[in-house]
This record gives sequence, structure tokens and C-alpha cells, in this order.
Amino acid sequence: MADITQILSINSGSSSIKFALFAFGAGLEEQQLDGAVERIGQSMGRIWLEQAGQRVLDRQQAFVDQSAALQAVVAVLSELGITHPDAIGHRIVSGGPHQQAHVCIDATVLKDLRDALAFAPLHLPAEIAAIESLQKIWPEKPQVACLDTAFHHSMPELAARLPLPRNLWQEGVRKYGFHGLSYEYIVSQLPDQGKAPTIIAHLGNGASMAAVADGRCLDTTMGLTPTGGLVMGTRSGDLDPGILLYLMAEKGYSAPQLERLLNHLSGLLGISACSGDMQVLLRQRENNPHAAEAIAQFAYSARKHIGSLMAVLGSVQRLIFTGGIGEHAAAVRWAICRPLEALGFHLDPEANAAVAQEARRISAPESPVEVLVVPTDEDLMIARHTLRLLGTGTP
Amino acid sequence: MADITQILSINSGSSSIKFALFAFGAGLEEQQLDGAVERIGQSMGRIWLEQAGQRVLDRQQAFVDQSAALQAVVAVLSELGITHPDAIGHRIVSGGPHQQAHVCIDATVLKDLRDALAFAPLHLPAEIAAIESLQKIWPEKPQVACLDTAFHHSMPELAARLPLPRNLWQEGVRKYGFHGLSYEYIVSQLPDQGKAPTIIAHLGNGASMAAVADGRCLDTTMGLTPTGGLVMGTRSGDLDPGILLYLMAEKGYSAPQLERLLNHLSGLLGISACSGDMQVLLRQRENNPHAAEAIAQFAYSARKHIGSLMAVLGSVQRLIFTGGIGEHAAAVRWAICRPLEALGFHLDPEANAAVAQEARRISAPESPVEVLVVPTDEDLMIARHTLRLLGTGTP
Repeated sequence: MADITQILSINSGSSSIKFALFAFGAGLEEQQLDGAVERIGQSMGRIWLEQAGQRVLDRQQAFVDQSAALQAVVAVLSELGITHPDAIGHRIVSGGPHQQAHVCIDATVLKDLRDALAFAPLHLPAEIAAIESLQKIWPEKPQVACLDTAFHHSMPELAARLPLPRNLWQEGVRKYGFHGLSYEYIVSQLPDQGKAPTIIAHLGNGASMAAVADGRCLDTTMGLTPTGGLVMGTRSGDLDPGILLYLMAEKGYSAPQLERLLNHLSGLLGISACSGDMQVLLRQRENNPHAAEAIAQFAYSARKHIGSLMAVLGSVQRLIFTGGIGEHAAAVRWAICRPLEALGFHLDPEANAAVAQEARRISAPESPVEVLVVPTDEDLMIARHTLRLLGTGTP
Repeated sequence: MADITQILSINSGSSSIKFALFAFGAGLEEQQLDGAVERIGQSMGRIWLEQAGQRVLDRQQAFVDQSAALQAVVAVLSELGITHPDAIGHRIVSGGPHQQAHVCIDATVLKDLRDALAFAPLHLPAEIAAIESLQKIWPEKPQVACLDTAFHHSMPELAARLPLPRNLWQEGVRKYGFHGLSYEYIVSQLPDQGKAPTIIAHLGNGASMAAVADGRCLDTTMGLTPTGGLVMGTRSGDLDPGILLYLMAEKGYSAPQLERLLNHLSGLLGISACSGDMQVLLRQRENNPHAAEAIAQFAYSARKHIGSLMAVLGSVQRLIFTGGIGEHAAAVRWAICRPLEALGFHLDPEANAAVAQEARRISAPESPVEVLVVPTDEDLMIARHTLRLLGTGTP
């Protein structure tokens, strides 16, 4: 095994941790296993692990916090004889104003991430806790921070700047963009590495789009925080800020109430009044007009953002769908693209409806814009960056 | 004069009142004069009046409030022998959830407008004060409310609905849209009355766009309030709402501070750190990089919204510029359209640069999208609606 490098990817949420182990070597890039710890902090949680798509472990167990969850991950890996991964890569939602590229984690990086908490208060605390827990468990292992904001750092200032007073820009109040690891992976899968003007639509519970040309991000829909841009599962996306002023002045909303409203009760859930999960809404749409409305609103929002990013690119040659909804919800792709036919997006109904796991073209042969579905793999992208950065920094 | 109807249009702001008098008769539709009261409530104000473009009156005078200002308007009209206009039309920024069409003002309408205050707290108080003042001065005159929201009432629910919980929609929290009187006037000037898919860009200190087809509004950029949509003179336009959450949680902004920031200190003023006035920025842009940045940001925002409305329309045949910036700032029209050439917007540089007051085509002959400049006339639209509604209600 001397010439094999094992990398553990960690993706921490507030109540879950997803992990995957990759092996790299000469001509080798392979996922060896993946798994998750779920319902951290609840009375009963769960840990599971799969190898080659087969569930090899599935246990009910309570995890009081991130640290306990990561101890359990290390323990189950050890049961499988995996005791010495060479490095650990973490998905980090935002590097804030000071960390702009994927980087080996040291004290300075950790301090910068702590200083960036205000820019991603929903995500960064769990991610920092995961780094700190693994530093205690495996003090000798290099750890790498893979930033969801890094891909967007190349955005022109014109796209990144907000229409707010300049002092806020100087403090780091700007458009950061997110889902960067997904965009990087998609670009890495394209024969031209994203040279042609391309819109990538990462549509999942969180959803965003990026305009890419010459392999770099020109603009993206999410802003300072992952609350902006498209209508999402439970998040509103961009709004007339007068709405928040109205809710504060007329209905007495406090900052925590607005946070809850806009991140957890809006989007598909708010419109449907039944679920923020697109799969649930798709199953209900025949019988539940509110579910149908929510789906239509999601598609309408996506369509308008595609138009907006077309204007950024000047012209578009390729539209790529990825993410849970983008890869699997053919009806949503159809609802987004059908009204855009005159603008060059011609789907092939059969190709769009086909169920498949691999990257594929879903536009008609004569479509001016090529429309693709490309499955994303953020875990692999984390592992690739971690491999690349191994030895470049001192953990 | 028996078959001539005289209509006085009133457009009230918080510190100014603009007015214009129109005469209608068989084959006659004529502005007889216009004028304004400025700096109401300040230590020294001003009232002026023009006929056929000639200043016939210009006085320095203090006006303590809207009522004093309107008494002065009535007094100067009387000096010119105009003592009996047949009716008065008011520009009303928002009818709120209950008043959706232009309407003769009675007690019910006034109550609905007062109930709508929360939806337009910056504009409605002065507009209601003007109605009440004129009811006292001329109790027998019919008054008509001309709503800037009326044109957008035809928007499909898909465009009007916000990605928020359904109970807020039921309370009237929706996209209303503004500048409707300007859009109606522009549509009335088009040979096809807005049948072909058209984007109208009303660009002034406040700025918005509307997607129009078959003569009706399909979507517009402003939302619940005039703070949303495009980057404007001092308003931010749409934002990632996470920015407001950040400013509240991390920087302790209160609701009044946010209101001041987003309505009065953002947009062109915030970016340039020198002025919210496009004419000032255009004069400074050679020597002041911040002014140049603000202009570029305005054009970028406009371009993205044009793309978004193209996606709404499915395809676009016509783009119309109007409003102070839209009619007069050739450099801004160029900055908006030049990068959209591959999407079908080909300006003729000479036609765009020509200085003229009348409606004109500024796109090249071969341009797939026809681009026009059409001067707007909201005062005339108010007078036309008031004439039409005369006799249909009991004031």
C-alpha cells in the first residue's frame, strides 16, 4: 500500500456528518467507502457506511455532539482496518474575507475561519468543531480546508460588489458565492474544462447557478450568504429588501424571527405549505395545487436566473444541471427549459426523462444550447484538493 | 370653453409637489402649464410655473407643509385665471391590497389608501395629505387616484407571488410593481399597444423594468416596495436577505438604520461614495474611478434584469428606454446594451448618441431586437385616467 494515498473527506452539517474515503495512486482515483452520522444531538442517532454501494454497517446510536460523532466515525473505520488515512479534507462553506483558496489548516487558518463565523453562522460552527475534534483524535494528520467560496474568488469585482456603501465592501460584505466544490468538479468533467460560455445549475435543497467561461466563474446567484439567489427548499433567495423592512416595521419581526423565516420557512416549504423537499412535492403535485405552485415557482425562479446569467455571459453554449434536483428531477428540468425554447434551449423529451446515473446530453440534436446532466461529486473534489495540498503546508 | 375639460395632475413627494394642467376637448389633448413647489417644510422653498416651456412665475417662499404648498398652487393658478379645473388626478404610489385600479376618491378609497400606508411608508403619507388638503380647498371637485401599481395588477400569480409562507401572501405581501403610469403611457404610444413581447426600462432616480406582451404586464422588477429590483440612485434593489440578517446580527443595525441604508445610502450613491445622481456621475467618470464603477454597476444590474425578463417573455422583440436616465443618458444605454449584442440588441451608435426629445429608434436596422427611446409622460396619463373616470364615481 506504500504508493497509495488515502484521503478522508468530511462534510459537516449542524446535525449530520457525511464522510467518504478515497484512494489515490498511479492511475488510481477510487472511492473506497462512504457513510454518514445522522441526527447528532438528538435522543437517538444513526451511523451507516457503504462500500461499493453495499450497506456494510448501520447502527442506531446516540451522539451528543460533533466530537462524539467523529469519534464514532474513527471507530467504525478502525473496525474495517482503516486506521491511518494520510490526510483529511473538510468541506468549509466560507473562508470569509481572509481565506480565499483551499488551504492546509494551521492556527492562522483556524483563526480566520473563526473570524468568518459571522458570514456563515448556520454552517461554519459545525465545520470548525469537526476540524478541532479531529485535531484531538488524530493530532498528527494533515487537515485541509476546501472552501465552497474558492471557485468564485475569480469573479470580476463588477459581479462581486454589492450596491451598498463602500465601507461595507471593505469589511468583506460582498458576493462570495457557494457550492464551489460542486462547480469545480463539474468543470473538471467537461472536455473543454469550462472554456465555452456555460451556465451550471446546482439544484438541490440549497440551489445556486454559476456563469462560467474560460474555466472561471463570472457570476453566481448566491451572495454574501447561502440565503440569496434562487428560490430553494426552505430559503427565500434574493428579495426586495423592503419586504424585511415591512416585516420589521409592521409586524414586529426580530432578527432571529427573520432568520428563521428566510432560511427555514420560505422557498418551496413556504409556498407549498407542506414540504421543502422537491421529491415530496413532485409526488403530491397532481392532487395538491400548492405543491404544484411551489414547483412552478422554483422553475420560474431558475428560468429568470438563467436569463440573467445569459446576459452576464453575452451568449451561452451550454447549460448543465447537477445536484439532487438537477440530476434526478426530469419534470423540474422540463419546467425550467420548455419556456426557454425560443432562446435556444431545446430539450429532447426522451433523453430528459431517461433515468441514468452518468453524465449525459438531454438537449435535442439541433438545440443551439447544449443541455447536459452531470452528476456532481463534492467529496471527490475535496479529496483531490487535499491530495494536491498534502505536503505544501504544516498542519 | 364649454366643451373643454380641464384636469389638474398632482404628483406629491415628501418635500415637493409637481403639478400640470391639461385641456381635453374634441380632438384636443394639451398640456396648458406645469410647475412645482419645492423644498416643502424647509426654511425657504420655491414655487415655479411654466407655460409652453417658458417660465412665467418663479418665487422664493416658505411652505410649512403639503397643505400650505397646495394653497399656494391654487393661488398661483388663480392669478392666471384658472379657478375651475374640472377635476384633479393624483399620482398614488400604491393602492395596497385593496385598491387595484385607478378610481374616483371617496371615503372608502381614502380609508383603503390609509390602510395601505405600511406598503409605501415613504410615499403615501404626502399623497394622502395632498388629497385631504385639496378636499378642503375645493370640496366640490372630483379627485381621482391614479395608482402606480394598477398596470401590474394583471401580472400572473406566478410573477406576483413571493417565496414566503402563504399567510403573508394572503395579507397582501406580494409583488406589486411601480412606475405603472409611465408603463401605461409608453404602451399607449406604441403602434401595437404593447402586443409584441417588449421590455420597458423606466430608468430614473427610481428605476424599474416591466415585461409586457399582449399589452399586459407579465412581470416587473420592483416588488412589495420601490426598494426592490434594479440598482437605483440611492436604493439597493434586490438583495440576498442574508445581508440584512448579517447587518442586524453582527453590526447591530436597527430597522430604521436599515431603512436609511437601503433607501437613502445605497445604489449609485453607495458605490460612488459621491452622488446618487447619474448626470453628476457621468460628468465625473473620467476622473473619479468610483463614479465610473457606480455607472458600470448600474448598467450590469440593468443588463441582468433584461436577461431575466427575456426569460419571462420567452423571446423579446423590443426594448424601450424611458425615464430621466433612459431618455437622456446615451452612455448608460450603450453600457447596458453593448455586451448584449450576441443576444440580439444592436445599437446604432449615432442614433443612440443623438440628442432629441421625441420617440426614436436607436437600434441598428438589422438588429433582431428593436431598441427605442420613448419619452414618458406620467402627468398626461394621470389626466387621461381622470378624464375617463369623471362622472363614474361620486367624490
